[in-house]
Amino acid sequence: MKVIELKMTVTDSNDRDAEALRRELSERGIFLINLMSAPGSGKTTLLSRTITDLAGRADIAVMEADIASDVDAQRISALGAESVQVHTDGMCHMDAGMTRMGLAGMEGANGIVFLENVGNLICPAEFDTGAHKNVMILSVPEGDDKPLKYPLMFSRSDALVITKMDASPYFDFDIETVERRVKKLNPDILIFPVSAKTGEGMEAWESYILSEWEKSHA
Amino acid sequence: MKVIELKMTVTDSNDRDAEALRRELSERGIFLINLMSAPGSGKTTLLSRTITDLAGRADIAVMEADIASDVDAQRISALGAESVQVHTDGMCHMDAGMTRMGLAGMEGANGIVFLENVGNLICPAEFDTGAHKNVMILSVPEGDDKPLKYPLMFSRSDALVITKMDASPYFDFDIETVERRVKKLNPDILIFPVSAKTGEGMEAWESYILSEWEKSHA
Repeated sequence: MKVIELKMTVTDSNDRDAEALRRELSERGIFLINLMSAPGSGKTTLLSRTITDLAGRADIAVMEADIASDVDAQRISALGAESVQVHTDGMCHMDAGMTRMGLAGMEGANGIVFLENVGNLICPAEFDTGAHKNVMILSVPEGDDKPLKYPLMFSRSDALVITKMDASPYFDFDIETVERRVKKLNPDILIFPVSAKTGEGMEAWESYILSEWEKSHA
Repeated sequence: MKVIELKMTVTDSNDRDAEALRRELSERGIFLINLMSAPGSGKTTLLSRTITDLAGRADIAVMEADIASDVDAQRISALGAESVQVHTDGMCHMDAGMTRMGLAGMEGANGIVFLENVGNLICPAEFDTGAHKNVMILSVPEGDDKPLKYPLMFSRSDALVITKMDASPYFDFDIETVERRVKKLNPDILIFPVSAKTGEGMEAWESYILSEWEKSHA
């Protein structure tokens, strides 16, 4: 497990850079999934369970992006998966140039790579990282009003994973309200309610990842 | 309840602007508290209970800052407190100039004003809003590793409110670990564990607000 200090990419061509990175990764057989969420939504816990459940069925590596610390990369590394921690030089998002720098430090990656973007519901939605799929995570304790307050991220995501479903009885969180609000912003989005603790819904989420990965190199 | 569309302040003098705003507010008898947290940490729920509990003892108004929607300002307004919703033109934080614009729309504010900053643990920590106190909120479901990942905000805050304490039994959240990690970054910070649902800890938090407000115009 490495820690890489990134420098902010200064470029007005992020969309082109992202397009080029996406093509290049496809040619190398890498399928990049950009995971975005608020801090504390359970991204690393979801990934940990996904890696364990899919062991032997898919080769998974993880790039952890944070302002500071390497606790998440340590957790992933402890599972035996390749992981790299990148520090974003104070930036609240990853862009295509930064993603490219992080990937350069992952020699062993060969298959599915998850980019765990900086915990933030605003800035990451504005920058194409070069990923093949954008997945957003919303946890039950955050509340069902989030699609109203952060519409861009819900609009830009291919799938929404609703985590910590086991905590539903303790919070005012109406999943039908969330689904209605999200589909209004993004009718094509796929929604996966899960609990990485109890395993509820994990199979549907993992099948989605596997089938997208298979489609990508069919 | 109003909605104000702000434009990003373009200035390299935010620190000076913030200092000037703080002095001006003190002269007008306004005590401004900047509340910062991740999305979904329960800022509005904490404020709603605080406003209800302190009714008759303090004059409280609220400025809600978001990218979109006015759901939070509606909730505060329903309690009979003055509230204004500001939209940050896509920006992930408030600065002193934006705070000044928002305050200009709150003619009735006269006492304690809470600025509910944009839900984000990164950018708001970097910009002085002109507030007299900076208060950070961390909710139990977000996890006890947050001081490691977002050190700047914990370092810049005068007080930390730990919300959703009633949910502690359902999450891996060790409050002593959090306290140790936070005090290492910021030995002078005051920590208030609360549950706005059960009322646990609310009195200590509310006494702090009242005593700071009294000190400010002693």
